[in-house]
Amino acid sequence: MKEAIEKAKVLIESLPYLHEFSGKTFVIKYGGSALEYEEAKKNVILDIIFMKKMGINPILVHGGGKKITEIMKKMGKESEFVNGFRVTDKETMDIVEMVLGGSINKELVSLINFHGGKAVGITGKDGHCIKAKKHILKLGTGKNKKNTDIGFVGEITNVDTTLFNILSQNGFIPVISSIGYGDNGETYNLNADTAAGTIANALKATKLILLTDVDGIYDKKRELIPSLKKDTISKLIGNKTIVEGMIPKVDACIKALNGGVEKTHIINAGLTHAILLEIFTSKGIGTEVII
Amino acid sequence: MKEAIEKAKVLIESLPYLHEFSGKTFVIKYGGSALEYEEAKKNVILDIIFMKKMGINPILVHGGGKKITEIMKKMGKESEFVNGFRVTDKETMDIVEMVLGGSINKELVSLINFHGGKAVGITGKDGHCIKAKKHILKLGTGKNKKNTDIGFVGEITNVDTTLFNILSQNGFIPVISSIGYGDNGETYNLNADTAAGTIANALKATKLILLTDVDGIYDKKRELIPSLKKDTISKLIGNKTIVEGMIPKVDACIKALNGGVEKTHIINAGLTHAILLEIFTSKGIGTEVII
Amino acid sequence: MKEAIEKAKVLIESLPYLHEFSGKTFVIKYGGSALEYEEAKKNVILDIIFMKKMGINPILVHGGGKKITEIMKKMGKESEFVNGFRVTDKETMDIVEMVLGGSINKELVSLINFHGGKAVGITGKDGHCIKAKKHILKLGTGKNKKNTDIGFVGEITNVDTTLFNILSQNGFIPVISSIGYGDNGETYNLNADTAAGTIANALKATKLILLTDVDGIYDKKRELIPSLKKDTISKLIGNKTIVEGMIPKVDACIKALNGGVEKTHIINAGLTHAILLEIFTSKGIGTEVII
Amino acid sequence: MKEAIEKAKVLIESLPYLHEFSGKTFVIKYGGSALEYEEAKKNVILDIIFMKKMGINPILVHGGGKKITEIMKKMGKESEFVNGFRVTDKETMDIVEMVLGGSINKELVSLINFHGGKAVGITGKDGHCIKAKKHILKLGTGKNKKNTDIGFVGEITNVDTTLFNILSQNGFIPVISSIGYGDNGETYNLNADTAAGTIANALKATKLILLTDVDGIYDKKRELIPSLKKDTISKLIGNKTIVEGMIPKVDACIKALNGGVEKTHIINAGLTHAILLEIFTSKGIGTEVII
Amino acid sequence: MKEAIEKAKVLIESLPYLHEFSGKTFVIKYGGSALEYEEAKKNVILDIIFMKKMGINPILVHGGGKKITEIMKKMGKESEFVNGFRVTDKETMDIVEMVLGGSINKELVSLINFHGGKAVGITGKDGHCIKAKKHILKLGTGKNKKNTDIGFVGEITNVDTTLFNILSQNGFIPVISSIGYGDNGETYNLNADTAAGTIANALKATKLILLTDVDGIYDKKRELIPSLKKDTISKLIGNKTIVEGMIPKVDACIKALNGGVEKTHIINAGLTHAILLEIFTSKGIGTEVII
Amino acid sequence: MKEAIEKAKVLIESLPYLHEFSGKTFVIKYGGSALEYEEAKKNVILDIIFMKKMGINPILVHGGGKKITEIMKKMGKESEFVNGFRVTDKETMDIVEMVLGGSINKELVSLINFHGGKAVGITGKDGHCIKAKKHILKLGTGKNKKNTDIGFVGEITNVDTTLFNILSQNGFIPVISSIGYGDNGETYNLNADTAAGTIANALKATKLILLTDVDGIYDKKRELIPSLKKDTISKLIGNKTIVEGMIPKVDACIKALNGGVEKTHIINAGLTHAILLEIFTSKGIGTEVII
Repeated sequence: MKEAIEKAKVLIESLPYLHEFSGKTFVIKYGGSALEYEEAKKNVILDIIFMKKMGINPILVHGGGKKITEIMKKMGKESEFVNGFRVTDKETMDIVEMVLGGSINKELVSLINFHGGKAVGITGKDGHCIKAKKHILKLGTGKNKKNTDIGFVGEITNVDTTLFNILSQNGFIPVISSIGYGDNGETYNLNADTAAGTIANALKATKLILLTDVDGIYDKKRELIPSLKKDTISKLIGNKTIVEGMIPKVDACIKALNGGVEKTHIINAGLTHAILLEIFTSKGIGTEVII
Repeated sequence: MKEAIEKAKVLIESLPYLHEFSGKTFVIKYGGSALEYEEAKKNVILDIIFMKKMGINPILVHGGGKKITEIMKKMGKESEFVNGFRVTDKETMDIVEMVLGGSINKELVSLINFHGGKAVGITGKDGHCIKAKKHILKLGTGKNKKNTDIGFVGEITNVDTTLFNILSQNGFIPVISSIGYGDNGETYNLNADTAAGTIANALKATKLILLTDVDGIYDKKRELIPSLKKDTISKLIGNKTIVEGMIPKVDACIKALNGGVEKTHIINAGLTHAILLEIFTSKGIGTEVII
Repeated sequence: MKEAIEKAKVLIESLPYLHEFSGKTFVIKYGGSALEYEEAKKNVILDIIFMKKMGINPILVHGGGKKITEIMKKMGKESEFVNGFRVTDKETMDIVEMVLGGSINKELVSLINFHGGKAVGITGKDGHCIKAKKHILKLGTGKNKKNTDIGFVGEITNVDTTLFNILSQNGFIPVISSIGYGDNGETYNLNADTAAGTIANALKATKLILLTDVDGIYDKKRELIPSLKKDTISKLIGNKTIVEGMIPKVDACIKALNGGVEKTHIINAGLTHAILLEIFTSKGIGTEVII
Repeated sequence: MKEAIEKAKVLIESLPYLHEFSGKTFVIKYGGSALEYEEAKKNVILDIIFMKKMGINPILVHGGGKKITEIMKKMGKESEFVNGFRVTDKETMDIVEMVLGGSINKELVSLINFHGGKAVGITGKDGHCIKAKKHILKLGTGKNKKNTDIGFVGEITNVDTTLFNILSQNGFIPVISSIGYGDNGETYNLNADTAAGTIANALKATKLILLTDVDGIYDKKRELIPSLKKDTISKLIGNKTIVEGMIPKVDACIKALNGGVEKTHIINAGLTHAILLEIFTSKGIGTEVII
Repeated sequence: MKEAIEKAKVLIESLPYLHEFSGKTFVIKYGGSALEYEEAKKNVILDIIFMKKMGINPILVHGGGKKITEIMKKMGKESEFVNGFRVTDKETMDIVEMVLGGSINKELVSLINFHGGKAVGITGKDGHCIKAKKHILKLGTGKNKKNTDIGFVGEITNVDTTLFNILSQNGFIPVISSIGYGDNGETYNLNADTAAGTIANALKATKLILLTDVDGIYDKKRELIPSLKKDTISKLIGNKTIVEGMIPKVDACIKALNGGVEKTHIINAGLTHAILLEIFTSKGIGTEVII
Repeated sequence: MKEAIEKAKVLIESLPYLHEFSGKTFVIKYGGSALEYEEAKKNVILDIIFMKKMGINPILVHGGGKKITEIMKKMGKESEFVNGFRVTDKETMDIVEMVLGGSINKELVSLINFHGGKAVGITGKDGHCIKAKKHILKLGTGKNKKNTDIGFVGEITNVDTTLFNILSQNGFIPVISSIGYGDNGETYNLNADTAAGTIANALKATKLILLTDVDGIYDKKRELIPSLKKDTISKLIGNKTIVEGMIPKVDACIKALNGGVEKTHIINAGLTHAILLEIFTSKGIGTEVII
């Protein structure tokens, strides 16, 4: 009985956060290696369902790097990367779309629905919701700088939120693959972090949450930085405190903050109930990037 | 951190109950001595606000015996009871209405609103929602049985749920004083347990919860009965297991069950977060009266 | 038959006023001694029901000075006034709330409903609709001026019209006790004239009608002033033409006019069908205060 | 002032009738000689506008016998009647439609709008609302009985209330010419009394009011019959108490009553404010035909 | 089969135009001699029904010169014109209204409904939708210029689109006679071209289409001008390229364009499916007048 | 010009069909070899967009046999069939889902959106819209009959139309992969013909259209049967007139007809604008299966 009372107290403690976030939109990016571990995945899914039940509107955006590489390999195709971007010829794009839209997306939808939520999985092509154009990579420096075509890698030019809103308002959790459509009917492979940030802006979201497989951003002494102002980031990139895969993440955070998102969070999906902790505790976990 | 994770787990554990009860109506009777203790009162109020936030529609019905007696005394008027009913002349009715509608009702409203809910307090006269007629007491037995007029004590003849529904659907928690109006503009003092049961029927509520100051119904060995079928109750009254003030409570439960309410509960308001425990644990506390 | 035809003509004569006021909001303050006489009260109530039926949205605001003093006396408590304000300690506030919210409010609701309207009675605490803070009285002049604490006498800091509008739009006549809530859950006693004026502003009402027990404002020769521009009032107060209890009334009128109310009226509730006469005749009765 | 108070009393006296009839539909047939007198016409129009303002939905149906004959004459065409029906060849039908739909209808619309109402005039062809077929007249008796073709005289086979309801719900008063459309695009001349009754049925109207130029139905002693049960009517026709033009009127009443209309009234349009008197007095005027 | 496939191709070819015009409002003026030919009339009607089915909102405005003259003659009244305007005394106005509102209007309604559309015919008096005042004709030049009263010839002072929109949104095609109401309840005869243009402005229509009995505007060499900028028109009137009845048409076009209508068209109603051709082919027919 | 008029006539000829089918739901199954040819695919897509524009609600259901086999091959996995069913182990199911939901579905969505429609692609897992259970194959005959487990091949147990309706009502064309979810979160491979039939029933569709790569059902003389009563089908299967892949198609038709679908059609997707021809011509093409 005593234990039960303690549990009831925990529920009651969540009330101020419910008041604060009810009716707000949270865009959550979930992908890459964060998708690997079953137990963590289940916890992420439960957190998202709980948020929806609480009156928050979660929007899930996902990528899926590892699985794409894996399926390509099975189909006898080598993956090639330039500057972190997957070189994406037509055949690769077909596989990317198949894996993201038909495999990872549906697995997430399935998990949400199995645990009592109601998810609908779409890509940026459905309802023409994410428009993109070819992303031209500029390689080299100075005079040697030149444009490099890496295929169907895209950057978003427009987000139409109609479909997201219709789904959200009808009780569904939208699960969105980071894929866009082009002017000529072609398909683009999008960076999922960037897509999540752009969608957060278009939806005037309150929070952008990037789930990853590290605990957040570390300083030079390998200590976690709990809070980071966006204007200090360029310096941290300059001095190599922030490197590699973390760069598109902080970029997404900065763009989202510039576009009106209130707070952005980089947190470890592997930490049990990481999202709820970030939302329903005052201290939070991971690194928050703020204005 | 570990503690925080435990808390998140508790939130997640409530999900199945949220699924089950979302959109349902719960009528909660709160009154009498259960209103005395400040700490308990706060916990009851927090539980009700939490339920509302979860998508449940709580309807609070209250009486207020002790405070009425107290104010009457201050105004130089003695309280008189016949068979548990307060003899209610016109002057007493005015005081009853003033205390229920202007004091206890507004205190509950104030507490709910202060803790973040949105309550609106009404009596059965507002919006002509509870119609009543004089309750004629039959005293004596056999040939000596005769009708006794105990003044403005009423029994409900009709409940119009329009106002309750408008308030609920607009995010408010209705707080209802157990007072009714009569055909000729007169006012009736109603038993709050019975009123709660009748309102639960009219609203096709899922649960009727009677908060009191004992843990539930006890058997002859003074052990709490966790679950009771309604058809066994007349025997328990017959053999004096159920006596006095508990009789109108079990009557209210039986009527509610007959009218379509799924489950009724008699629980101790003094037990911390008693309502949440009853709803969000499989075992429950107190005594449930079922079909 | 002839008489019946004359009656029909009267109905038809009201058409232009119906056209003019249909869909508009009128805030009516009713209180103090104007509440004493049964016959007058019935007429006021019938006028308000008729207005509602005509498509006007009446909002009734009431105080209740005399009855408060009377009940306090019965409970062995003396009333004390400073500069026209009732000194309101916690115990007094409890009685004020009980009398306004539980007695006068419900009597008005009862009368409206009995005569065929649909009223819902609330105080400024319900739905957190009237927020207030302590009103600090400045007594003395010049150097001797000092702040005096007269207890829970409040001034309005915010009016949330959500609940008023929901009730009005659903066919109910809101009846509002002049009570507010404070930041810390405390309750404030408000001047009903001022409350009515502030509510009229918040609702962007077309008219503010203050019912009182005199025929309006008199000039020095004891003749009724039918129409008064708001800018001439400070002079009339200066030369003692307007004194005592009439001052908060004209203040309420001026504030209402400044806030966008089109016309304000001070009329005698004792005059049979005073409100209808004011609305449905071109000449009107009482004193109108205009821009 | 005293007079003004008397007027206010009259308004208040109408309250019970407003309660009773608010939201109800009244079908009013206005036509024939009742249309001749300007002053009476204005009073009828004002009564109808007042009803609309009160929340009643009046539907005006009109014919126009005299004016049709008049215009036909001007156009050099003689009117011919068989058994009270106008023989209606194609050319006559064109004139009937022109006079009803373009002249009388628009005059009524104009009057309503000029006096502050909002009317929309249509015929049974607009929105395909009144479908009709050729009415075959059976002349002669016994063996000599034979079908006679009197042209485009129609009987209603269906009423589609969609357009009437859209107009009513948007604040308009529908004014309907007694004209119907046929299966092959042809137009039919309808008896306006019968059309009003059929429309009343289709709309599940509360009242059918037939305005005429006599005070109601008279008995053999030339005394007005205030109330008539529908089952007694065939006897009154049999003994020639009810004759000629009154026969289609009582027929319309009987059909309306059989179809669910609560009460039907035959009243004199020339009596000042006849409709209001019928509605807002308990005694009424004219003859009511009831179940 | 091959022919069927060709037909399907035609349907598919209309898709881009459907995308472009869906939800847009087109005001079509139809009248005068264009109303004479049965086959053409049917084609016009079918085109309008098709447009409605496609999601376009057609609004039909009509006059009816020839028929008015004809009926007047039958009624023994000579038609008289000054500067192209019909001198309209009260008696003439009555006939104009009867012919437009009761004859031509209902014929168009009948045709639309017979072929599967849903039309409702009104004049500018219904729902008080077209307000007008007397049009004063200025005759003579220089010193001899003087105002001439030609009776109830009106110019529009206001268009209330409420009724048009209610009808359109409920699936009906409004058919409007070019008649207006005046401040004193009088009726005005309006030029139908001008009325159509003013209605197009009030409705923020996309297109104004004037159906006539010539193919469009011809240049001096008697060749059709396919497209005309509005600013070149005054020159064409100056040099007598545009004369007589075409002048009010181009005036209506200019006013409509100035008021925000995107394109205006003058086309020959006699040309089979002229409206569809104008809308669903890139080249169009007739003369378009553009900004 | 003449050609343009002919085209307009074609548009007008479609009016009666538009009247008949406006607001109705058509379920179209598109898949298998019918998906192979680019030109045919484009025509199918244009037909569907045109239907949507006309006010019909098309719902597209697809399978994708050939492409699944092809991708499995690329991934080094052999396809195995028993009685026409693909043996579907977990690994195969993953590939099926990826190909249907991520490749074919998105290609159809892309084509519709590129040509001006608005499609949203989902599988039966999204929004938990298609529930299924394992389909047990009964092989052998008589005593040797035994259940055979062919893996994740499913049969539908429930269709929830909520998501389909939300998408349709918001202007989208739902494109549905023939995949279902099971009670334990597993995924099932469904026969697309059967799925289309079951969805048609659940939606109370007017038509079920099965697009295939033959012209319809042939009789023994290899002549196309234009119309087939459902009760004659079992005989045709018995005498081997209907064989192999056509059997699940006629089964789907029969079930749909039994469930209330009005008409079912088996037509050749390769025939230009086959769907429009079937809908907008009286004769139709292919084979219709009717009650």
